[in-house]
Amino acid sequence: MLREAREAPQVVTRQAGDASIERAAQTIAAFAPSFVVTLARGSSDHAATTLRYGIETHLRLPVVSAAPSVAGVYHADVSYQGALVLAISQSGGSPDLVETLAQARRGGALTCALVNTLGSPLAHAADLVLPLHAGEERAVAATKSYLAALTLGAQLLCAWRPDEALSAALHRLPGALDAVLAQEERAVAAAGRLTGDQTTLVLGRGLHAGVAAEAALKLQETAGVGALAFSTAEFAHGPARLAEPGTPALFFQARDATAPFTADSLSTLRGYGAQITLIGDDVPGQAADLPTPPTGHALTDPAVSALAAQLLIAHAALRRGENPDAPPRLAKVTRTR
Amino acid sequence: MLREAREAPQVVTRQAGDASIERAAQTIAAFAPSFVVTLARGSSDHAATTLRYGIETHLRLPVVSAAPSVAGVYHADVSYQGALVLAISQSGGSPDLVETLAQARRGGALTCALVNTLGSPLAHAADLVLPLHAGEERAVAATKSYLAALTLGAQLLCAWRPDEALSAALHRLPGALDAVLAQEERAVAAAGRLTGDQTTLVLGRGLHAGVAAEAALKLQETAGVGALAFSTAEFAHGPARLAEPGTPALFFQARDATAPFTADSLSTLRGYGAQITLIGDDVPGQAADLPTPPTGHALTDPAVSALAAQLLIAHAALRRGENPDAPPRLAKVTRTR
Repeated sequence: MLREAREAPQVVTRQAGDASIERAAQTIAAFAPSFVVTLARGSSDHAATTLRYGIETHLRLPVVSAAPSVAGVYHADVSYQGALVLAISQSGGSPDLVETLAQARRGGALTCALVNTLGSPLAHAADLVLPLHAGEERAVAATKSYLAALTLGAQLLCAWRPDEALSAALHRLPGALDAVLAQEERAVAAAGRLTGDQTTLVLGRGLHAGVAAEAALKLQETAGVGALAFSTAEFAHGPARLAEPGTPALFFQARDATAPFTADSLSTLRGYGAQITLIGDDVPGQAADLPTPPTGHALTDPAVSALAAQLLIAHAALRRGENPDAPPRLAKVTRTR
Repeated sequence: MLREAREAPQVVTRQAGDASIERAAQTIAAFAPSFVVTLARGSSDHAATTLRYGIETHLRLPVVSAAPSVAGVYHADVSYQGALVLAISQSGGSPDLVETLAQARRGGALTCALVNTLGSPLAHAADLVLPLHAGEERAVAATKSYLAALTLGAQLLCAWRPDEALSAALHRLPGALDAVLAQEERAVAAAGRLTGDQTTLVLGRGLHAGVAAEAALKLQETAGVGALAFSTAEFAHGPARLAEPGTPALFFQARDATAPFTADSLSTLRGYGAQITLIGDDVPGQAADLPTPPTGHALTDPAVSALAAQLLIAHAALRRGENPDAPPRLAKVTRTR
């Protein structure tokens, strides 16, 4: 997981050199979808959550997060006519994703697979294929393929609706990822706070809600730590009950429109006595434990925060005596229906 | 929470006598939306998750679960033209929901508020208003208003696309809810398994995924138990790591197309040594701890399972010395942006 996380800058550089993104974007723009459907599971679905906020804020198109069981289990043929379906998968091997994508394509959707394994059934079933360019992923828990989905999504949005600030931010991204990697010692130092047996709260919002969800999943699967992810807004609707003096909390503070609201949430959480580990921007009264360099755009910042979280969690897993590359019970290809 | 859960059968009877559901359904059918947007937070959003599976399987229309922060925080005006927006809220008071609904209405969506407080800002902002008929909800943690949203959703789907089997099931529903309430002693007996400090896994799938999510939230907010909800398919993609000998797990086994798949998941989970409390149907090798009466339709069964879970969790909270009607840190109206 650590070695693969360290490859993130090269992955982004490989993506930036791939002309197929621009060609796919032209096809998509010509199709002019009326809405977008994301189709993914696990870590890929968390990348889709960030992409969803990106699509809604950058393109103003509504995004459906497909429930693969609707086609695969209930056999209901949802009408995706006029939609762009973006399927995200490392392996491209899960039957439910292939079935839902094929059904959407027959029903008049434009389908695009973001996959790492180009010869996979999902890639074969799609109109358009975009390689994640993650390279072979050896760790069972998705690391660089998740980051690759985040950054490929940003590249695709920029090609689809060109934006100078976003383009500049994408050029700066490998450097920003390198800067995060250069701070690994900070991750080592902070990891000790996430190694207890108490349930850890993981909080982010908007473009960072999916980053928080992915961090919680990684804590679960690689460190064996019970972790609960919430948007800070949803947290106020109930789960705030769980924050007690000493409760570990991993908090993502973004440099976007959510910042004043999440800063308030952080302050409330601190008032409850939670032991907060802060990734991202400083908040008045609390300096970031893992400060992230600004990339210059809200749509590229999540990748940087996500990489910082991966370093932190990999070191937490090691400290708990776990092998983050081979967690129990998981397989590289999860076949679900 | 317990007293209010016990009112569930009357709530459904009041809804069944409300002619405004039929009128709203006629307006919606005439509008012929090309997709549906659900707009909700917390428990109401969990009701929306079940409604989403209902809409996709019963009407074959895609469903967007709106992220209220896209309008409220990022100020992005997503195009919801031609959509039906279903906003669900007990209080109808949260500014982000009102803002998103108003923006969707200006943009050409048909908007419908499912609310308990008819004089609320959300009700005033919507084209159509459907009362939840929950009656005054005194417990802070949503109980009967959540159930009311589930059952009102099923009533609306039946009026929108009439279906004899669903109509018959809706008529049987108050009786089925009564049958669950008559088994409260079983809930008291099973509650002891959910009172430890270990993170509890809560698993359901498809129409029951939202029921599982709500059960986890209620465990968190009323009993102070760390609880993690997953669809059984997502569980296999990573969090399975958390199941160890003795790990408490609350499992929903539905009588619908998911049954063979979830039965397999239950068997796997049992193999890990998890201590399973089963709600719903029996599974080969494991009888249900809280068996639920079949209502005769997949779209009405979730309400019955949800009520069984509420009884169980309320008793778990009491056993932990908590007052499930007044959990710390929560307010009846949560104002988020």
